[in-house]
Amino acid sequence: MTDLLHFEDFHIGRRFECGPYHVTKEEIVEFAREFDPQPHHLDEEAAKKSLLGGLAASGWHTCAMTMRMFADSMIPLAAARGGIGSPEGRWLKPVRPGDVLRAEAEVVEARPSGSKPFGTVTFACKVFNQKEQVALILMTPIIAARGAP
Amino acid sequence: MTDLLHFEDFHIGRRFECGPYHVTKEEIVEFAREFDPQPHHLDEEAAKKSLLGGLAASGWHTCAMTMRMFADSMIPLAAARGGIGSPEGRWLKPVRPGDVLRAEAEVVEARPSGSKPFGTVTFACKVFNQKEQVALILMTPIIAARGAP
Repeated sequence: MTDLLHFEDFHIGRRFECGPYHVTKEEIVEFAREFDPQPHHLDEEAAKKSLLGGLAASGWHTCAMTMRMFADSMIPLAAARGGIGSPEGRWLKPVRPGDVLRAEAEVVEARPSGSKPFGTVTFACKVFNQKEQVALILMTPIIAARGAP
Repeated sequence: MTDLLHFEDFHIGRRFECGPYHVTKEEIVEFAREFDPQPHHLDEEAAKKSLLGGLAASGWHTCAMTMRMFADSMIPLAAARGGIGSPEGRWLKPVRPGDVLRAEAEVVEARPSGSKPFGTVTFACKVFNQKEQVALILMTPIIAARGAP
C-alpha cells in the first residue's frame, strides 16, 4: 500500500495547488540564450521597443516553469509513468523578472486505457502571477497508474 | 529596404526548413533537472523501467529545442515582433540522446491585425528525428510586421 494517487483518484474537477516559482532576470536570459534567442527575451533595451514593452520570458520558458511547479507539487503524489499526448496552451500575459508564479491544476479529462493498467489524465493548469493575473493556460496530460483492483 | 520577410510574405502553405539540432544526454538531464525532474528524464536505469523504455527528453524540452531551430532558421528572416497566442502540440515519439532533429515549419494561418501594422502567422512545425519519424507536431504563432504599403 502507498499513499500515492492513482488513476481512479483523479476525478474531473479535482484541483491541485502548485508553486510558487520565483522568476529571475538571469534565468529568463539564460533560457532565451539557449532556446529562444530573440532580442525581447535577451535584452532590456530591445525589449522596451518590442510589443512586450520590457524584458519577458520566452513563452516556452513559462511552459517549462509550469512543468517544474507541476512536477514539484503534483507528480510526487501520483503513481505517474510519464507524460504523453497533446499539450495545448495560451500565453496571456508576459512573465517578467521578479514575478512570482503559482499554478492551479484541475483535472479536466480522465481516460482509462482499454487494455493496460493505467490511464491518461489531462490537467488544465492556470498560471497566475503575483497580481493574480493569468499569465498562461496550459493543458497537459500525464499517465497515471491504476490502483490495485 | 531590407530582405526581411513581412506578414505579406507568409502565404498559407509556404514552408521553411529548420535545424539540425543535435540532442545530447547531458542536455536532456540538465533540462530535466531544472524543469521536469522525473526519473525517466534523469536516470537511464529508471527510464528503462518506464513506459518510455529508455532515457528521453522532457516533452517541454523538445518544444524548446524546436523553438531554437525555429529561431535560428526562420525568425532571422522575418520582421518579427515576438510570439504570442496559443501554442499546441502533440508528442509522438520519444527524443533520445544522440538524436538529430530537424523541423519543417509550414504557414497554416495568417491573420492581419485590424488596426496595427502587423499580423499573426501560425506555423505548423513537424519535428523529425534522423529516422524520419515525426517526434513532435507543434503549432506556434509569431507576430510579423507588415511591409511598407
